[in-house]
Amino acid sequence: MGNLNDLNNSDKPARNPADKVEPRTLPGFMELLPKEQIQFNKMYDIIRKTYELFGFIPLDTPILESAEVLLAKAGGESDKQIYRFSKGDTDLTMRFDLTVPLAKYVAKNYNNLAFPFRRYQIGKVYRGEKTQKGRYREFYQCDIDIIGDGKLSLINDAEIPSIIYNTFKALGFGAFQIKFNNRKILNGLLEYLQVEEQASEVMRIIDKIDKVGNENVVNELAGLGFRNDHIDKITKYLSIKGDNLEIISQLKSLDIENATYALGLQEISQVNEFIQMFGVPDYNYTIDLTIARGLDYYTGTVYETTLNDYPGIGSVCSGGRYDNLAEYYTDRKLPGVGISIGLTRLFYQLEKAGIVKLANATPSSILIVPIVDDLSYPLELASKLRKGGIDTEVYLEPKSLKAKLNYANRLGFPYVGIIGDTESDERTVTIKNMESGEQNKVSFDDVLDIIASKIR
Amino acid sequence: MGNLNDLNNSDKPARNPADKVEPRTLPGFMELLPKEQIQFNKMYDIIRKTYELFGFIPLDTPILESAEVLLAKAGGESDKQIYRFSKGDTDLTMRFDLTVPLAKYVAKNYNNLAFPFRRYQIGKVYRGEKTQKGRYREFYQCDIDIIGDGKLSLINDAEIPSIIYNTFKALGFGAFQIKFNNRKILNGLLEYLQVEEQASEVMRIIDKIDKVGNENVVNELAGLGFRNDHIDKITKYLSIKGDNLEIISQLKSLDIENATYALGLQEISQVNEFIQMFGVPDYNYTIDLTIARGLDYYTGTVYETTLNDYPGIGSVCSGGRYDNLAEYYTDRKLPGVGISIGLTRLFYQLEKAGIVKLANATPSSILIVPIVDDLSYPLELASKLRKGGIDTEVYLEPKSLKAKLNYANRLGFPYVGIIGDTESDERTVTIKNMESGEQNKVSFDDVLDIIASKIR
Repeated sequence: MGNLNDLNNSDKPARNPADKVEPRTLPGFMELLPKEQIQFNKMYDIIRKTYELFGFIPLDTPILESAEVLLAKAGGESDKQIYRFSKGDTDLTMRFDLTVPLAKYVAKNYNNLAFPFRRYQIGKVYRGEKTQKGRYREFYQCDIDIIGDGKLSLINDAEIPSIIYNTFKALGFGAFQIKFNNRKILNGLLEYLQVEEQASEVMRIIDKIDKVGNENVVNELAGLGFRNDHIDKITKYLSIKGDNLEIISQLKSLDIENATYALGLQEISQVNEFIQMFGVPDYNYTIDLTIARGLDYYTGTVYETTLNDYPGIGSVCSGGRYDNLAEYYTDRKLPGVGISIGLTRLFYQLEKAGIVKLANATPSSILIVPIVDDLSYPLELASKLRKGGIDTEVYLEPKSLKAKLNYANRLGFPYVGIIGDTESDERTVTIKNMESGEQNKVSFDDVLDIIASKIR
Repeated sequence: MGNLNDLNNSDKPARNPADKVEPRTLPGFMELLPKEQIQFNKMYDIIRKTYELFGFIPLDTPILESAEVLLAKAGGESDKQIYRFSKGDTDLTMRFDLTVPLAKYVAKNYNNLAFPFRRYQIGKVYRGEKTQKGRYREFYQCDIDIIGDGKLSLINDAEIPSIIYNTFKALGFGAFQIKFNNRKILNGLLEYLQVEEQASEVMRIIDKIDKVGNENVVNELAGLGFRNDHIDKITKYLSIKGDNLEIISQLKSLDIENATYALGLQEISQVNEFIQMFGVPDYNYTIDLTIARGLDYYTGTVYETTLNDYPGIGSVCSGGRYDNLAEYYTDRKLPGVGISIGLTRLFYQLEKAGIVKLANATPSSILIVPIVDDLSYPLELASKLRKGGIDTEVYLEPKSLKAKLNYANRLGFPYVGIIGDTESDERTVTIKNMESGEQNKVSFDDVLDIIASKIR
């Protein structure tokens, strides 16, 4: 509240409060009701906690940056989607991802960082996409990246799936598949076929195979003027099936004589072996040769993650290995590997699919309901619970008991602690389980242990 | 990482990486190094946890809103400080506080909320202030507000200081004072003196008394054309001193016959009594009649908080009671009381004053350092620690032991777990305390309990 006045401290005539403005939120901007927000924050906290369990360092960069800096890759040119504007003589851009700010940060603070630099960042990014269901203009990305100084061992590419595994295990949305591929395999195949100039078109077409099917891919490649024997090689490659070791063996037996292809094959074999060592169960990870992850940013391992029961949601966690994080800011070679969870969209989809359960509209475990005039004892009891780490609200308004319990019901408090004259005199509290209706009188000395054991 | 490609998926020519852009961050935008960020996050987490302990509900509103909505009070006009721009045909504003978005939210979602609505919001706000040390254009506000439907009991005004108390106690920056006042006392005095038309000028002048001193205030009031006997009344009022009960008694003995004054006096007496009941020690709260908190937003209790050893920092937590949160959006009367901590500025000042201690550049407690080829056992041990909730990093690069320990030192890991062939064969780990240099060999079965007991 406090600083509000600084801005209102002007001599401009204030608006007449009789002329109401409609209190609306812009389309494409998520704003949740309490019971949704609480579930959203639980997901946020699980992701953050898992990233920290794996030793990632928190980073928070500005949402606003100089347009020259954020748009360095595009030579200062901006897409329609970018939020870009001027203030005074500063050309500003709202960040559209967390990777470009990371690149800037690492280049800027190189001398103050120890490598490998493992950072996580969870924050809002902005893209003026067409508004449609499930597409947001402001959305959270939850990123981790491991950045090497000059080089970065391949074993990091296998640690990433173990972090995805632990994150989605902790989120608890049922079975999931971590799919991975290596861009060098496809790049090598294209080199071998001598069609590198058309590599990006091929990538784009292949990327769509899950959506449009094999036949359409063949047609599209033919439309680009590819020779039939080349299309055959590609479709043969795309038709490889089996478990991970079978896929690797079939890739070998394709007999592609190309160094990039061979390196990709070696990398994917090692990553496949290493992942197991990181404790990811084998039914949670699989090689998927159709994954390309767009254009020329990724250079090695690439990842996507899907929920087995909700394939329509698409990838819920994607990323990959890249050769050079910050080439637009520094000559230093900074290879890395990372992933991102698009939390806002994921929450929207999970809620729509009925997977996230909305229960309480309060994070508190208990509402203390005093029905006495002197609040000293109820407040003492609330203090005791809070000191024990129990989120506790005291109902302070002078309303009827019915109104107070109504409030507790509406917010979904699991427990209510009623304190009337008797309880106050005895130094007890009547704990009511709001789901079962069960009531028990509990002493002041026991209340913390009892509530703590109930909610944990 | 993942979604980056969506935006780069254009046919525009990319910039030539040979032309480097300077990786800079805009002035007025805080961007911290890891060891600072970790301390910042600790403060953030303590504030959030304390707000939740008192039963506040999380809220997250968009950073971008329609200019018409955010600037409703000013009739759509915006200050120079406001970040306002157009995209397509939408007139957008970046939020400049968390109160206006709260007002919009409550008016919009009135039917879906239970009252009193206790919400906390911690988020970035934007003001294009002149850049100078300690002034930020992007900064975190940490707000709580309790909103009533039609009315809100005065006892809430006494709960707020108990939340401030618990927050700053938990932050641990030494002794602090919660100062409070009631705007009705000063307003009543001005009514009694029949100088209401000049009330805002008087408020503004009085607000500065701590900075400019008594004599300057007298001169400024005289400059505004105030009669000497009126100035005398005001300065007599401003010279009231003593403990809270003495101040209240002296306010009574001023013999001001005015209903607003009398109500203010009654409120401040009750709030003073109630605060004690909420368990705030009496040396942590004091009535300060010089606090006015700017212009006409606050209507009752107002708060400021200062750190005893660092008075120069000014108020670190301010707020107050207001009659009507959302009058620009709804006819419903929504009184409230709230406070805000300006975390970014507070962090800057505390760091400058040497109060926040910067120690580790990693949130992890332990770095596992394998000096074996087969990483299975080190990774199994890391998994065990993580399952026990210990933030654990495994050093994966193929470097010398010296380089690995160097990395541990640079990041400030409190413990390193070295695993060589012997440890791997024995299923043990050599735990090195990085501060004392002490080393102990520990079994796989004991390692979790030992590390957990060391770090807690």
